[in-house]
Amino acid sequence: MDYFPAALENLVEQFARLPGVGRKSAQRLAFFILDQSEQEAKAFADAILDAKASIGCCPVCQNLTEGEGECPICASSRRDHSVICVVTDPKDVVAMERSREYQGVYHVLHGVISPMNHVGPDDLRIRQLIERVAAGGVEEVVMATNPDTEGETTALYLSRLLKPLGVKTTRLAYGIPVGGQLEYADDATLMRAMEGRREI
Amino acid sequence: MDYFPAALENLVEQFARLPGVGRKSAQRLAFFILDQSEQEAKAFADAILDAKASIGCCPVCQNLTEGEGECPICASSRRDHSVICVVTDPKDVVAMERSREYQGVYHVLHGVISPMNHVGPDDLRIRQLIERVAAGGVEEVVMATNPDTEGETTALYLSRLLKPLGVKTTRLAYGIPVGGQLEYADDATLMRAMEGRREI
Repeated sequence: MDYFPAALENLVEQFARLPGVGRKSAQRLAFFILDQSEQEAKAFADAILDAKASIGCCPVCQNLTEGEGECPICASSRRDHSVICVVTDPKDVVAMERSREYQGVYHVLHGVISPMNHVGPDDLRIRQLIERVAAGGVEEVVMATNPDTEGETTALYLSRLLKPLGVKTTRLAYGIPVGGQLEYADDATLMRAMEGRREI
Repeated sequence: MDYFPAALENLVEQFARLPGVGRKSAQRLAFFILDQSEQEAKAFADAILDAKASIGCCPVCQNLTEGEGECPICASSRRDHSVICVVTDPKDVVAMERSREYQGVYHVLHGVISPMNHVGPDDLRIRQLIERVAAGGVEEVVMATNPDTEGETTALYLSRLLKPLGVKTTRLAYGIPVGGQLEYADDATLMRAMEGRREI
């Protein structure tokens, strides 16, 4: 016997499909929606439909963007289009932009090479990157994939593809994070920090 | 500067308004929606609108129900309509029904008296309960509010209102939970369990 009304049960199931949301949390979220005004619930539903309908990928850098054309970063004449920073995910672009240091453009792979999860090079936006570099005007490609095994593998794979095109490929520096404490840094990080030491 | 497209930012904000969902989780959920098919996203949005549009309160027991009329429990002739179990929340009805023990009907208060949160008796469905009991045919009202201060206060308040109507008011038994371990039971529970001991 089903004790929740069908429409409520359906909403609970929809919430339970979200990542990290279990059945109990889904119930709490569904009841929260019921407690909201008609208007608030509609705003939520509309936000889902709008985002899905209006957000696509920039044809150049593959980052998420609104509408059909190039994203604001690719379209900007103030950015240095000769440097491409390769990231895994649109969220990484946001993180990089937050630092306000980088003036070049991006390329979003939408994933990393991961044989364990059946993700091969063809599942990522690698072809688009190669075409972009082959089209000329690019001097440097900075790999900013995550510093884990899959990120490293992807960066290495890309650099081997890009080298023959006569472009410089670099990697973000490793080291101890700013504001971190030396005693909490792991061995691998300390080793990399030592390797990359600089004269002051 | 806003690095997410506006429609995505809006969706993130909508998710962040949900209880227990922070900005980071909201981003994860929003990206999950973007990764879904058009159809799946639509099903989610529709579930929200449907639930909001079709779910109302049963005019008798105030439990959530679909459509305008009485809920299936109130409409059932197999339930004992002379016993009303008073619960705080529609979720508690589901919990009680799961036990398959109770054959009476319910009354959902939609909250507890809580001066700290500015919830007084008039904010709950207490008037409807009194009217229901005053209309006659009710022999017993079982208080099944939560065993915390606010639940106790509400139960006590209700029993004082109901006593003059000549109806028996009872309270769910306290004691050690089935399957629990004595050593982990708190003092108050053990004391209540001792008070309520029975001959075997």
